Amino acid sequence: MPSVSNAPAAVASATSVSIAQLQDFVARVLTAVGMPEPDARTVGAIIAEADARGADAHGVFRLPAYVKRIRAGGMNMRPDIRIVEERAGSALLDGDNGIGHLIMKKAADLAVQKARYTGVAWVGARMSNHAGPAGIYARMPLRHGMIGIYMAVGSANHMPPWGGTEMLLSTNPIAIAVPGHSRPPIVLDMATTNAAYGKVKAKAQRGETMPEGWMVGRDGKPLLDPKRSNEGFLLPIGGAKGYGLALMFGLLAGTLNGAAFGKDVVDFNRDYATTTNTGHTVIAVDVEAFMPLREFEEQVDDIWAQMKSSPRLPGWDEIRLPGEQSHRTFEERAAHGVPIHAELRTALDALAESVGVAPLDG
Amino acid sequence: MPSVSNAPAAVASATSVSIAQLQDFVARVLTAVGMPEPDARTVGAIIAEADARGADAHGVFRLPAYVKRIRAGGMNMRPDIRIVEERAGSALLDGDNGIGHLIMKKAADLAVQKARYTGVAWVGARMSNHAGPAGIYARMPLRHGMIGIYMAVGSANHMPPWGGTEMLLSTNPIAIAVPGHSRPPIVLDMATTNAAYGKVKAKAQRGETMPEGWMVGRDGKPLLDPKRSNEGFLLPIGGAKGYGLALMFGLLAGTLNGAAFGKDVVDFNRDYATTTNTGHTVIAVDVEAFMPLREFEEQVDDIWAQMKSSPRLPGWDEIRLPGEQSHRTFEERAAHGVPIHAELRTALDALAESVGVAPLDG
Repeated sequence: MPSVSNAPAAVASATSVSIAQLQDFVARVLTAVGMPEPDARTVGAIIAEADARGADAHGVFRLPAYVKRIRAGGMNMRPDIRIVEERAGSALLDGDNGIGHLIMKKAADLAVQKARYTGVAWVGARMSNHAGPAGIYARMPLRHGMIGIYMAVGSANHMPPWGGTEMLLSTNPIAIAVPGHSRPPIVLDMATTNAAYGKVKAKAQRGETMPEGWMVGRDGKPLLDPKRSNEGFLLPIGGAKGYGLALMFGLLAGTLNGAAFGKDVVDFNRDYATTTNTGHTVIAVDVEAFMPLREFEEQVDDIWAQMKSSPRLPGWDEIRLPGEQSHRTFEERAAHGVPIHAELRTALDALAESVGVAPLDG
Repeated sequence: MPSVSNAPAAVASATSVSIAQLQDFVARVLTAVGMPEPDARTVGAIIAEADARGADAHGVFRLPAYVKRIRAGGMNMRPDIRIVEERAGSALLDGDNGIGHLIMKKAADLAVQKARYTGVAWVGARMSNHAGPAGIYARMPLRHGMIGIYMAVGSANHMPPWGGTEMLLSTNPIAIAVPGHSRPPIVLDMATTNAAYGKVKAKAQRGETMPEGWMVGRDGKPLLDPKRSNEGFLLPIGGAKGYGLALMFGLLAGTLNGAAFGKDVVDFNRDYATTTNTGHTVIAVDVEAFMPLREFEEQVDDIWAQMKSSPRLPGWDEIRLPGEQSHRTFEERAAHGVPIHAELRTALDALAESVGVAPLDG
């Protein structure tokens, strides 16, 4: 059955660790390579939450690459994250080339603080870096009774403009999170391409072919072999429409923030030393500026129930809401631990040894 | 060549009218059915602009249906459009069942006024009605050096949740407009379905079949005959992703505003008497809250040039930016008039006669 969110693949030969163990491990690795401990714990909590919510390709899996970038001098361990432009309902942060998680948490906190007074607040950031899954930051305003929206310029270009062949666009994602009352929040977290690049790499690792629609070659013909992915590019959702969304999110989260977009985007998987100047934006909308929170949440629950109870197409056993799968994964992993498959475990053990800290427990 | 925006179909046996003639005609029809003249001129200007920009399915073509609704008592000609919730950067308007154009122009004006101080402003509306093309309202902040964003709950449900068969969602559109300096603004205006319902109706009129991907039947199989469109439903862009976008835009522009969404949406093409309680939202972002306007506009021009100069796929003669086709159409129609094809002319002549005003000149 097609899935609304990124369902984690069933993992063979995996061992489990608790969310707290995962956070501790990330924190001690980052502390060992020079990050102040409070910052390392903040980043550790976000990365562990990413894994716990099933965003496996955006969690601890990325830690070796972050450390590689830090060692290559491509990321600042003691950034002076500061507000460079500010109005009552808006701000622009300069992240001073710090890790994205830290910068975007500050952006979300600031947006919430401002929206409490202005109703809505929009906080952008430049000079940032990869920050993990979009949904994490859209979720941050939820506990304050607010709706969260997040947009980013992706960290490598994998898509041309519609009709072109030069890779000028990334998978520029958007996430939108809306609180429910007795149901989980509804959280959309999506790339503007049919498949995220991480899914292509996963197909290659497993020796599988890609379905038609994920990628085309420079001749415009379907590209099905994921091992040849560097000969082609990702396709946007809805053709010209997904191209348009990727472009607009790039202008809003990149250009407007003075961050990289288009030709200026540094491929963070190939170049570990150059400053990426990644741009992201968080928007917080205070529900109480429009209606009583409880009333809104109950109406969101009602919409959830309406969608859920629709008759189904042949072959479908369930209708899902955006974020529902991620919510279930979180409940499961909070209770029984986060699976770490053997290959990832080996990589994390090697990382621990190389920075001189204890390996991941569990 | 696939088009980024809705290119107007080539029109046989059309006569042309000026934008001013079109505005005057709309204004006198609406005045004749009870709208105060200043309001009728405001709506006339917006409807004429819709036609001039090539949004033919959202312009004067809709006027007979608006009049039908007015006569059925389904729309209030003298609405008391008022702010019911307000903070420094946000507001909620109650449109008092007025025509959508009037309400959303007030929403855009208010958003611009607020964003000048707060950096960003978010103005929602409930108790509104169909307002024409999304792009019109996203464009309104442009002349103030601002970025505009518009979202709406569509005026009839044509799509089920992903995997379902009950039509609980509309084509819920989004428009985003970003100013350029020596280039036209970049303006995305899109439905969250692969095809807007108007395109299906146009295919039926021309006796053509639909391409695969536009619609499926209740069995989930492709539906290609547009005359059988009531046996199936529209498909969202990118499958579950487009479903997610339609759902989130519905929660933001409908539920948050206390407007109809889901089962409550009234099909405005079948029921002319019931209050639709349409919801829409306009967001204005003051560029100067982030960087000098001129600097931003020049960077947007540079992104335009980057996209435009990409090498092309075989068979493509041009790469387009969102809004480019609409801009060209506007230049052409401002100079040479808006084509009114014979069938539409007949409908407008009948309308003029029935309300007792002079027909459309030209």
